[in-house]
Amino acid sequence: MKCTADIDVRDVDESCINIDPIQVGGRLTADAMKAVIAYGDGYSVCDHCRKPFRLDYIKKPPIQQFHKDLAKFVNMDVVRVVPGARRGFQAVAGTYVQKGDPVLITALSHYTEVLAVEGNGGIPREIPANTDNIITAEAAAETIEKVTAEFGRSPVLLFLDHFDYQYGNEHDVRGIIRVARQHDIPVVYNGAYTVGIMEVDGKGLGADFVIGSGHKSMASPAPSGMLAATDERAAEVFRTTAARTDVTGRTFGIKEVEMMGCTLMGVTLVGMMASFPHVKERVKHWDEHLSRGRRVIESLERIVGTRIRSEMPRKHTLTRVDTLKSFDRIADTHKKKGFFFTSELKARGIAGIIPGATRVWKFNTYGLTAAQSDHLARAFLEIAEKYGLDIE
Amino acid sequence: MKCTADIDVRDVDESCINIDPIQVGGRLTADAMKAVIAYGDGYSVCDHCRKPFRLDYIKKPPIQQFHKDLAKFVNMDVVRVVPGARRGFQAVAGTYVQKGDPVLITALSHYTEVLAVEGNGGIPREIPANTDNIITAEAAAETIEKVTAEFGRSPVLLFLDHFDYQYGNEHDVRGIIRVARQHDIPVVYNGAYTVGIMEVDGKGLGADFVIGSGHKSMASPAPSGMLAATDERAAEVFRTTAARTDVTGRTFGIKEVEMMGCTLMGVTLVGMMASFPHVKERVKHWDEHLSRGRRVIESLERIVGTRIRSEMPRKHTLTRVDTLKSFDRIADTHKKKGFFFTSELKARGIAGIIPGATRVWKFNTYGLTAAQSDHLARAFLEIAEKYGLDIE
Repeated sequence: MKCTADIDVRDVDESCINIDPIQVGGRLTADAMKAVIAYGDGYSVCDHCRKPFRLDYIKKPPIQQFHKDLAKFVNMDVVRVVPGARRGFQAVAGTYVQKGDPVLITALSHYTEVLAVEGNGGIPREIPANTDNIITAEAAAETIEKVTAEFGRSPVLLFLDHFDYQYGNEHDVRGIIRVARQHDIPVVYNGAYTVGIMEVDGKGLGADFVIGSGHKSMASPAPSGMLAATDERAAEVFRTTAARTDVTGRTFGIKEVEMMGCTLMGVTLVGMMASFPHVKERVKHWDEHLSRGRRVIESLERIVGTRIRSEMPRKHTLTRVDTLKSFDRIADTHKKKGFFFTSELKARGIAGIIPGATRVWKFNTYGLTAAQSDHLARAFLEIAEKYGLDIE
Repeated sequence: MKCTADIDVRDVDESCINIDPIQVGGRLTADAMKAVIAYGDGYSVCDHCRKPFRLDYIKKPPIQQFHKDLAKFVNMDVVRVVPGARRGFQAVAGTYVQKGDPVLITALSHYTEVLAVEGNGGIPREIPANTDNIITAEAAAETIEKVTAEFGRSPVLLFLDHFDYQYGNEHDVRGIIRVARQHDIPVVYNGAYTVGIMEVDGKGLGADFVIGSGHKSMASPAPSGMLAATDERAAEVFRTTAARTDVTGRTFGIKEVEMMGCTLMGVTLVGMMASFPHVKERVKHWDEHLSRGRRVIESLERIVGTRIRSEMPRKHTLTRVDTLKSFDRIADTHKKKGFFFTSELKARGIAGIIPGATRVWKFNTYGLTAAQSDHLARAFLEIAEKYGLDIE
């Protein structure tokens, strides 16, 4: 079906059970969809922008209040919306990282954290994961000592993913932040896979910054996200322009340098706002999403040869699974190769796994109903049975 | 009318003739609205993302083709979409501006250009406007000499707005670029008020970069925009990551540092794409929009005491008007003060002028039909008559 002459309608989430690893937390709520329709036009939230002319001061729609609510939601002092979590990383790196500065990331850090460091001339140094692919406080402490010895000074910043994008494993954010604070290293808590799907207590964890992704985990259109800070750090990362031009003597009020002035002027922000009451509610039900996801994992584990590469028991709905010795064996001789698996899933109304993937792949069960997760669990078993794989 | 519990429906463009200075070029087309509905969800354009995993390679929806078409549209070699024109300024400044470097802007430059310079530690220096508020090639040449003497080296970059946001005046981009090229200064053509409403020939003008705003002039949701470059400059501004992490040895393929990887992953990009065929067509009709706007200007000029502050005859539909000696005289004694004017316009179905403004204000007639611009022209005269202002 065509949406416009050149663009097909997208109906993945309307017609399928979507288990795409990055998409499931970003599906719009019905309220967000209504807001998107009402606020589609370019500068749609700017109708009532008055002095001092900055996005987070607008009262209608209630953008100012939303900023306060969002800060409270993650227990931080100040928040700004940004065009994706990555633009939050960029703003923090732009504030603290100078050329040649060492910056800590982890062995499982998202690539956009590396780009933020690189873009500011910093030198990333990884905290290694242990053999279970977990980042521990001990590893953080050792790496800080090692990097401090290498550079003759402490790292200037630490990017820390609560749950990483590769395994969906939980890392010891509380312990690592404690270590970092002993060395006065500001910490960015990357909540791309937490903020909006589970409760996050930024100041409780001791984080200097909490970053979330609207389109990844807050049921919002792309690109959207949030950067929250403590009052102390907010004064640094949200510093206002100090420029005064030489000929006309112009100054630019309270525009914030790292935000480039206003950030999300329309549909993206209103989408976040419209979903927010639902997001606030859904984080309280994270355990239900997790337990539904675990039923799917149990089913996969029954297929002999299948290995869950993520930590067990699962603490997140994003999971990395290894089917080299199960579904990939079928792919070896099937005329469709790995696409047999895609086809079998599709025939059962399941989408979101990379087409052809039967070796090591990721999926995310967040947002499925009990009936959908049961269906998914059964589907994996049915496909295994159909092709003669052993089931325990 | 409520859109959600806390957000009112926005219907400015459905219920009024909107002449907001920044909004009129960003109203969605019907196709964009359809696309926004189909692609509202977070990472909605990523369903068919395959190796090498970058937004501009995606074939379905036809994002790859759109990038080619967009480059051709402004006659440049390479284009990337960005979250607003300002993020294009930031990317270019991030590539060329080091701490302490002089950067040329103009006396009428948009504030986001200043923020982009400031964020990278550059020192902005303004090319002055002449008494008609026009930036000339002579002024550019003089400023380059002056700044070169001051810093002992040439400015590293020049930001140049074809039409500025304050007056909607046209500046001598061709002449200024010629001067800049003689000094090997790369030029950013800021087309926030041109790309998407009139034809732009980037390489014909000699520009190194052409930047456009989706939500300002390309009938697209916010935040969206484009950064186009010549092949030579593209290799610099769109350089790919060179990072290799120390512990895991990870590299990040063809992700571009200044783009922070992918940029517009959903509704914003699809909105731009859906409007694009209409945008390509509408730029051919710029003269019609301009002549309809001029009829409104003629009408305002008939109201004794009113002064058009923008250059005359108008070459843009964005205009700055001074009604200190006409409508503001009424406001002096009216119980509603300046809001009488807002009310009178509203009663005639006209919106988009800052409420209460009767001194110096801006409006933009882009996109009005002939009947709407006639109505607007009549409305100004009617209000003047009603309050006893002289009409010539």
